[in-house]
Amino acid sequence: METAEIIAIGSELLTPHRVDSNSLYLTRQLNSIGIEVDLKVVAGDQETRLEQVVRSAVERSPLVIATGGLGPTEDDITRKVFARVLQRQMVLQHDILQTIRNRFRSRGLEMPGNNARQALVPVGARILGNRLGTAPGLWLEKGEVVIVLLPGVPSEMKAIFEETCLPLLSQRSTGSHLFTRVLRSTGMTESQLDERIAPIYTPYKNPVTTILSGKGEIQVHLTGRAKSRQEAEALVDEVAEPIQVKLGDFVFSTGDQSLEQVVGECLLAKKETLAVAESCTGGLIAERITRVPGSSRYFMGGVTCYSNQSKVEFTGMPPLLLEMSGAVSAEVARSLAEGIRDRMGASIGVGVTGVAGPSGGSQEKPVGLVHLALAMGNQVEHRECRFSGDRERIRFWASQTALDMVRRRLL
Amino acid sequence: METAEIIAIGSELLTPHRVDSNSLYLTRQLNSIGIEVDLKVVAGDQETRLEQVVRSAVERSPLVIATGGLGPTEDDITRKVFARVLQRQMVLQHDILQTIRNRFRSRGLEMPGNNARQALVPVGARILGNRLGTAPGLWLEKGEVVIVLLPGVPSEMKAIFEETCLPLLSQRSTGSHLFTRVLRSTGMTESQLDERIAPIYTPYKNPVTTILSGKGEIQVHLTGRAKSRQEAEALVDEVAEPIQVKLGDFVFSTGDQSLEQVVGECLLAKKETLAVAESCTGGLIAERITRVPGSSRYFMGGVTCYSNQSKVEFTGMPPLLLEMSGAVSAEVARSLAEGIRDRMGASIGVGVTGVAGPSGGSQEKPVGLVHLALAMGNQVEHRECRFSGDRERIRFWASQTALDMVRRRLL
Repeated sequence: METAEIIAIGSELLTPHRVDSNSLYLTRQLNSIGIEVDLKVVAGDQETRLEQVVRSAVERSPLVIATGGLGPTEDDITRKVFARVLQRQMVLQHDILQTIRNRFRSRGLEMPGNNARQALVPVGARILGNRLGTAPGLWLEKGEVVIVLLPGVPSEMKAIFEETCLPLLSQRSTGSHLFTRVLRSTGMTESQLDERIAPIYTPYKNPVTTILSGKGEIQVHLTGRAKSRQEAEALVDEVAEPIQVKLGDFVFSTGDQSLEQVVGECLLAKKETLAVAESCTGGLIAERITRVPGSSRYFMGGVTCYSNQSKVEFTGMPPLLLEMSGAVSAEVARSLAEGIRDRMGASIGVGVTGVAGPSGGSQEKPVGLVHLALAMGNQVEHRECRFSGDRERIRFWASQTALDMVRRRLL
Repeated sequence: METAEIIAIGSELLTPHRVDSNSLYLTRQLNSIGIEVDLKVVAGDQETRLEQVVRSAVERSPLVIATGGLGPTEDDITRKVFARVLQRQMVLQHDILQTIRNRFRSRGLEMPGNNARQALVPVGARILGNRLGTAPGLWLEKGEVVIVLLPGVPSEMKAIFEETCLPLLSQRSTGSHLFTRVLRSTGMTESQLDERIAPIYTPYKNPVTTILSGKGEIQVHLTGRAKSRQEAEALVDEVAEPIQVKLGDFVFSTGDQSLEQVVGECLLAKKETLAVAESCTGGLIAERITRVPGSSRYFMGGVTCYSNQSKVEFTGMPPLLLEMSGAVSAEVARSLAEGIRDRMGASIGVGVTGVAGPSGGSQEKPVGLVHLALAMGNQVEHRECRFSGDRERIRFWASQTALDMVRRRLL
């Protein structure tokens, strides 16, 4: 049993307001015993539609895990639909009924009639007790296929899964383990990166390499499968290491660390401190840096200079400079970086100015134009960038580039 | 066309790390034109599995919307698989190729060879231009079935959907119309709010009322269904209006407006200007305010004072005050608000100081304690809050409360 399909059942999961997050938990658990999820389905409480979905799942997947729809009301149809697809009768399980009754009684309540439904289960089902709620989980088999039905309430789903389901699945799992390493890079496009590293990973089927483009970064995911976690990790590293060498300092993290965490660690390691003066990013750089607990050890502070007056007042910029070069210019970025470093008493200063849009652009200084500067010691580095996309994207990329300039300066 | 199926394509969506959130946006949009989503599938980039999924979708659903897998790499297989299921040849569209080439050229780059793949599309596809990225959307028809392929990058997916897809779908949507109004409130708990308004909405089956708790806010969603949008809207307003009256100024928005947008409008309307001095929120308030295009008209700027030196330097706070009251105190919040207002030349100043955690708390000043102050004219308002949760939540709630103080001050 190497792959699984997850079916999340519940009409609320088909609205704009709720996402199926149970499957993330289940995926992590399944991965830990070497089972990959290769399909997820979200279905509502319409019987014919759910029946189609269940039928396909049971035909194609060696392990089917369904969550939700085990409640006591009319629209909780999971048990019924699985019974129909598996051609099993529904029987009343008196021990389940008794457990549910006791559950209510222990709280001084009479069991509502509806709840008796939860004791109706397909013949041959193994009961997975639920100590946190009324709906037990169910384990069904049809030939080689294993089907697990779990409640949708996350705490109940997790308790049942860990206590009874995972041990049962571990016995059946082929014994292989998965290990995933994520290389996070910034400063290259997806296709530039792929062109560089495809020759390295293409010959390998194990680990599997996936390239993902995220917000301001490109991630390389390498997942290896082997009999032990150690072997899986070794398989991954055989490919990850040459990729990392090839990508060089474009890789900022090989774990779960965000760019702002990496920057924080670099600052701590080199005993440097940072201050930022932001125009178009509007505080985003400071906000990202201070998301990291303990950032007060290396972050002195920042200013968001939206007005010319604030640029002059808070970074000591000569008013003439603004007039001569314009607010969006290399000179202003440099002056912001130097000024804020000195005013905050930091060792590194970063200045950012640009046109985040959607309005305010001109032919000469279009939306997306951003000047960034980093002042450290006697040197001021400058970068001019042209980011595409909307205001949010331009601001994010500007903050990403600024953080990456700090990281690279400290390498 | 009354129902749709959404297929999210991408191996990363089958890992424990990513959830398909594009479908939430698409569901909202589809609902707005009376189309309900009755199935969602998440598939990886394994061709045979995806082909099965696509084949079933095209057989059972009148509208199939797929997101993701339109990129330039080997594992972007969406175009290819849909072409196979629909039995269409793939052809190179020279105008797409030219658009992609120009996109790279405008940034001074040569198009990587890989990207040519994105110009290979199934015969008969209608091209849905993508002004934010290289992968165009595609519109395909097979008999009565409409198939839409969109990129997985949210900003690109949204732009294409709104600009070309939604208008085309609206023409075909025949059934009833849904209208949803969202009342967004802050400053009340979910159960306080529900107790107030349950007597108003309970008697109504149409509109359906749902109460959802979001980040820093509680939302009341009212969805009406009728033959026309106008009728649906009238049904909604019959219930929404008395609810709004009952909730009074706890409601900050009755549309899509965020709190920072509402604050911006209040400032513009009252011709006031704002400056902020942030400690524990680390730039988040400034960042939220400046997310709004045009915020430079009312936002003068902000400082993130992480060090005591910066509090003194940038808001003119007497060093003695910090020593006497401690950095997290009502006095410091007041001084930050007044100081930043005067330094920035704004009419309103906001100051925030607190313990965001996870460390740095004490018995007297625990994690979650936040002092907020608003200075305007001769008055300084102060609020002391104790937020629960992790660092991110505490910072967000502090920023939310600060923005809400400005909104209420200007009502």
